[in-house]
Amino acid sequence: MTKIAILGSGRVARVLAGGFRDAGHEVVVGSRTPDGPAAAGWAAAGVRVTGLPEAAGLGEVAVNALPGAVSAGVLGGLAAELSGKVLVDVANAVEPDAAGFARALRHPGGSLAEELQRALPGTRVVKTLNTVHDSLMARPGSLGTPPTAFVSGNDADAKAIVAGLLADLGWPAGWIIDLGGVESARVPEAFVLMVGDLVGALGPVPFALSVAR
Amino acid sequence: MTKIAILGSGRVARVLAGGFRDAGHEVVVGSRTPDGPAAAGWAAAGVRVTGLPEAAGLGEVAVNALPGAVSAGVLGGLAAELSGKVLVDVANAVEPDAAGFARALRHPGGSLAEELQRALPGTRVVKTLNTVHDSLMARPGSLGTPPTAFVSGNDADAKAIVAGLLADLGWPAGWIIDLGGVESARVPEAFVLMVGDLVGALGPVPFALSVAR
Repeated sequence: MTKIAILGSGRVARVLAGGFRDAGHEVVVGSRTPDGPAAAGWAAAGVRVTGLPEAAGLGEVAVNALPGAVSAGVLGGLAAELSGKVLVDVANAVEPDAAGFARALRHPGGSLAEELQRALPGTRVVKTLNTVHDSLMARPGSLGTPPTAFVSGNDADAKAIVAGLLADLGWPAGWIIDLGGVESARVPEAFVLMVGDLVGALGPVPFALSVAR
Repeated sequence: MTKIAILGSGRVARVLAGGFRDAGHEVVVGSRTPDGPAAAGWAAAGVRVTGLPEAAGLGEVAVNALPGAVSAGVLGGLAAELSGKVLVDVANAVEPDAAGFARALRHPGGSLAEELQRALPGTRVVKTLNTVHDSLMARPGSLGTPPTAFVSGNDADAKAIVAGLLADLGWPAGWIIDLGGVESARVPEAFVLMVGDLVGALGPVPFALSVAR
């Protein structure tokens, strides 16, 4: 059992909080508005909601489930709370178009994961799951063909911890691909630019990037 | 039966020339060195080899199987021969690292497909297959899970022609995803930046990008 801080309280946070709790982990959700109306829903579901610094301080592992656009700014202010810990970054940082799809990356030529690693030098950032529709993050086996969980990060031990947490969410080891250091998150992060086109082609179905082999 | 000009005479050209010939098409290969030693091998295999302009002029459809780094320069000189035709672009234009893997794109923020469309305004450029290992281009069913053939181009009729040619190479319609206009080739083209990391993780096995759904 690991104490997992989910930083963010939206749709991705709900999926991951549920998945990790179902796997037996202790989950605390950190919200930018812990006294807002959404917190009541979390409390009703039996999940503790606190402010972001308290949650980050409580977690042994933290998950960035904040909107990508605010992630670097918000998490950069939590360097002390996140020091020495693993931060699992599942976000996409984009400039949205009118329909809400990504029209550009916020970190072109780089990645959000690298920005977070630079802002949090004492934290081990591991990128994963950002190429997976949120509804599939904790039930990857629900598709007709296997999705891929790409993993990028500079620290091998941190990536092993994340692989274990992915297993708890239902990801077989063979569906996880370790791409290398944190800069290897660049191409998976660019995938979000294709999502609007894919929804246009496939309709609003859940999908995920995969490496067929 | 379509007269198909394969522009380029390397590994990709061999796969596609063989695949299209097996499907009953008439294939001519255009080489930058039609009198070189490689041409004899093609002739022995019963494939006609000519210079690039002659092949481009003969083909009803042309395939860019040249190295990505020289594609825009070489094909830009064939505007007259390619005018009014479909050009299927399967190339990746990269700056290689010491191991031969891509370390950067030659058209960052854009794509080779867009460069070709700009250089050849009278030609209908369709990008596809550049996310598929060459050994799989003409036998996509040989993997354990289905790969995806992404298609990008501005002209619907041209994309329909390409979908037909993909079917001839063994691609079921359900494995082909039309991403939209030629600029939608950007993300598939960026995939090449991940290939070195994937070979590092998976070993030298054939693979292809896929959308699991």
